[in-house]
Amino acid sequence: MTTSKKAEAIDNGVNTDHLLGARGEIEEEPAKALFTWRATCEWRYGTHAVTKISDFFGFEAEQPRNKTFAVDTDHPMLFAAEDNGATPIEIVLVGLAGCLTGGLAAIAQHRGIQLRSVTSHLEGTQDLQGVLGVDEDVRNGFGGIRVSYEIDADASREDLEALVAQAQKRSAVFDILVNPTNVQIKLAAPAQSDGG
Amino acid sequence: MTTSKKAEAIDNGVNTDHLLGARGEIEEEPAKALFTWRATCEWRYGTHAVTKISDFFGFEAEQPRNKTFAVDTDHPMLFAAEDNGATPIEIVLVGLAGCLTGGLAAIAQHRGIQLRSVTSHLEGTQDLQGVLGVDEDVRNGFGGIRVSYEIDADASREDLEALVAQAQKRSAVFDILVNPTNVQIKLAAPAQSDGG
Repeated sequence: MTTSKKAEAIDNGVNTDHLLGARGEIEEEPAKALFTWRATCEWRYGTHAVTKISDFFGFEAEQPRNKTFAVDTDHPMLFAAEDNGATPIEIVLVGLAGCLTGGLAAIAQHRGIQLRSVTSHLEGTQDLQGVLGVDEDVRNGFGGIRVSYEIDADASREDLEALVAQAQKRSAVFDILVNPTNVQIKLAAPAQSDGG
Repeated sequence: MTTSKKAEAIDNGVNTDHLLGARGEIEEEPAKALFTWRATCEWRYGTHAVTKISDFFGFEAEQPRNKTFAVDTDHPMLFAAEDNGATPIEIVLVGLAGCLTGGLAAIAQHRGIQLRSVTSHLEGTQDLQGVLGVDEDVRNGFGGIRVSYEIDADASREDLEALVAQAQKRSAVFDILVNPTNVQIKLAAPAQSDGG
């Protein structure tokens, strides 16, 4: 069986042809690759906030979604908060897990590996002396993150290790975590200005 | 009106006394500050995955929650995916927004600033030449992130700018974005080993 025929029989639910098509379009016109992702966050009460996600920009056009995703964040009851959502630092683990797993399925499809189940366990350590301002030498964020994948698939352990490695290599959120990003945070200009 | 009395009249829903108590406990026993946050991600189909968050470790003990948070991630229809959840890179914006906003409310409470509404708009740029492997010099993650806060509160613009600055300074997710984190990703050891 050729790789091509084998790949045809594989169904991980990823449209590899479409992805390769998009890749080809971008190779011809790199401006199409410039995306802007957006979110709007509203404070509710206490440490509870709701962040909504809908439209984005890409392929040189606004890309309207026909839906809005809303994710609650809060602090746990241990900190006398109401635990109305995962803590924001836990949400970062969601981003990493979702990115690696989605990528892994796409790469498996491309490589002709039929997945049956993919489960990952993530752990991130944090020394709260940072965020609480107890010790200025302790960082606010994660001390480190460990991710462990359990994969049930028609493939050798070597192929599955290569699959995990490639998912890491192509992951946006992995890159965001291991490399610095410029983040600019400001108070918006007043809605009405007296001085014109 | 003294700061103390003024602070008593302020209700942003944050229990500042409890937070200062936790901070005091951690100052006396830094081991209590060592937290482990966890997530478990299950692949569904295509690029769709669901990540669940429940218990964590902190204050030298397992901290069971009485609930589990589940967040869907997927890729948008533009990539022939089913758009069953926000994209993982958008989820990172959720983490940043939730972290800054929760912190901002806590700091406002501590500073005696009554908040009426807090809304933030986030934008993150991404050049997809990175994740698609078109150009190895392009990073996979965000080119940059901009956050703009609109705050309705009983405070001067100067005080609100200081509030946003302090929320940034104390934010775990801001730190995670602007500084590198060690991330270890591996395939789990086989459940059953023939070799003992």
